Amino acid sequence: MNQHALPTIETIRDAAARIASHAVVTPVLRSDALDALAGAQLHFKCENFQRGGAFKFRGACNAVWSLDDADARLGVVTHSSGNHGSALALAAATRGIAAHVVVPEGAVQAKLDLIARAGAVLHRCAPNQAAREAMAEHVQRDTGAVLVHPYADARVMAGQGTIALELLAQVPTLDALVTPVGGGGLAAGVAIAAHALRPGLPLFAAEPAGADDAARSLAAGHRIESVAPDTVCDGLRALVGEPNLHALREHAVEVITVTDAETIAAMRLIWGELKIIAEVSCATVLAAVLKAPERFAGRHVGLVLTGGNVDLDALPWGTTPHP
Amino acid sequence: MNQHALPTIETIRDAAARIASHAVVTPVLRSDALDALAGAQLHFKCENFQRGGAFKFRGACNAVWSLDDADARLGVVTHSSGNHGSALALAAATRGIAAHVVVPEGAVQAKLDLIARAGAVLHRCAPNQAAREAMAEHVQRDTGAVLVHPYADARVMAGQGTIALELLAQVPTLDALVTPVGGGGLAAGVAIAAHALRPGLPLFAAEPAGADDAARSLAAGHRIESVAPDTVCDGLRALVGEPNLHALREHAVEVITVTDAETIAAMRLIWGELKIIAEVSCATVLAAVLKAPERFAGRHVGLVLTGGNVDLDALPWGTTPHP
Repeated sequence: MNQHALPTIETIRDAAARIASHAVVTPVLRSDALDALAGAQLHFKCENFQRGGAFKFRGACNAVWSLDDADARLGVVTHSSGNHGSALALAAATRGIAAHVVVPEGAVQAKLDLIARAGAVLHRCAPNQAAREAMAEHVQRDTGAVLVHPYADARVMAGQGTIALELLAQVPTLDALVTPVGGGGLAAGVAIAAHALRPGLPLFAAEPAGADDAARSLAAGHRIESVAPDTVCDGLRALVGEPNLHALREHAVEVITVTDAETIAAMRLIWGELKIIAEVSCATVLAAVLKAPERFAGRHVGLVLTGGNVDLDALPWGTTPHP
Repeated sequence: MNQHALPTIETIRDAAARIASHAVVTPVLRSDALDALAGAQLHFKCENFQRGGAFKFRGACNAVWSLDDADARLGVVTHSSGNHGSALALAAATRGIAAHVVVPEGAVQAKLDLIARAGAVLHRCAPNQAAREAMAEHVQRDTGAVLVHPYADARVMAGQGTIALELLAQVPTLDALVTPVGGGGLAAGVAIAAHALRPGLPLFAAEPAGADDAARSLAAGHRIESVAPDTVCDGLRALVGEPNLHALREHAVEVITVTDAETIAAMRLIWGELKIIAEVSCATVLAAVLKAPERFAGRHVGLVLTGGNVDLDALPWGTTPHP
């Protein structure tokens, strides 16, 4: 498979079979209070309960188990601000191979702890795309490890797409679907899978206003690389990948941009009403639904909550200790 | 039924049938990391996902639907620092009757909001047992409403006991069970149900060291009323009820006391590993398992997480806002 191509419904189904014995079939939660607020029936796909605490395990696991034995023996390498890194480390552990993870300075400590706990070798670099890629190439040359890109990789997108297979089976009445968009691995994989099963299903992607390169790129008709991310959503700072953007365009995914304040308010609603720990990045999906109610009124909406790896000492709203 | 008597397995089964169309069958969650920490297989019964965000809905719902029509028409009244109050308000709403809730000054704001949202009439009083009971009696006289005591009530205990029926069906291999103990409605109901199904099952109750009247009462052989509660666990400050204490003794429930620091550390573990919002009070159960590992080594342990109504602006550890 050409890693820069897009997955198909067949490769997504293959991925589902490949990861079945390793990944969790995550539950779908509901809340009367949030339904009332949105004027729609909301179905939250809880990937915070996924192995490693985020959906990223699906794509990483599919990539690791797609390798032939000779390649696998040399291990895998990636660059990631956190969740993909720990996911790849966990996935490599399921196959007993080495994982190298290049992490930018400034990544969330809870996520670095997870990577280290999963047994990966950490390689630090400066917090920009060029430094990440250069360090990953260096490790590749040194070790022979196979690069598993966080999102611009057909194996990874296929793994993320398995979420749509699961969610549509869990909630057959779904008539709209929202994911966050950062690099676009999830948004692309879900779009391809969802439209294979349900052609014409309205698809949305929630993007922070401070990292709105996907929205701008779709509007401009080509990939905009000049956006300097400035958002509290640490999982959504990556620029959308070229193949990912292509999939979003092809599947008419509508991007809804939300401010950090809207996202933080949505995160509090998720914590308070669903009683679950969800990362700030994935609260963008609820923020988007509440911001554009006319798109969702009366619909059965699937919202992918992507992860729950939160630094409990640094919540976005701050708190005072109990008396 | 004499409200000061104890429920039986029959009245607990009746309660399960009575509340079935109103209450949630809550999920059981697991964590490899927490299992490793405890040296046991931990099964968390997640009552934070119960209607109203706490197990209290079960007992309140059973009490409300146990009333005959003439009594029900006059409404119900209770005194509660929070979760039982909102549970009774929600339960009353399912039958379309009035609920009056006496709340002590200083109760958690998130819980008061829930009570008000459910449509109950709030009556404030001083934060002590005598003031709570006096105000509840006053409302009873004024309105004719039926008192539904938070824990020393056989209907309420029967409702709480349904948790054990569910959990033993969900995890048939269970060989130990831990609940928190405050007033003892949950601990008593669960003990009676669990021992009817599994005689001899080791039962434990986790109690804050700063409100250890159940531990002291069991040790002394009579109810100690002189404990002035001093604990962060707002849901466990009540003195254990007389019938509740009787059930704990009869079923050889072993009380494990834990400090607030141990409980707060356990709460962080639950949030971080299970990715759910659990109240500080219910983290006592994990604190107890980690404090007395010799009691649980290698066992399949059921832990009842009682609720998730947390004031997100006042976490017990405090946090600094994200940069």
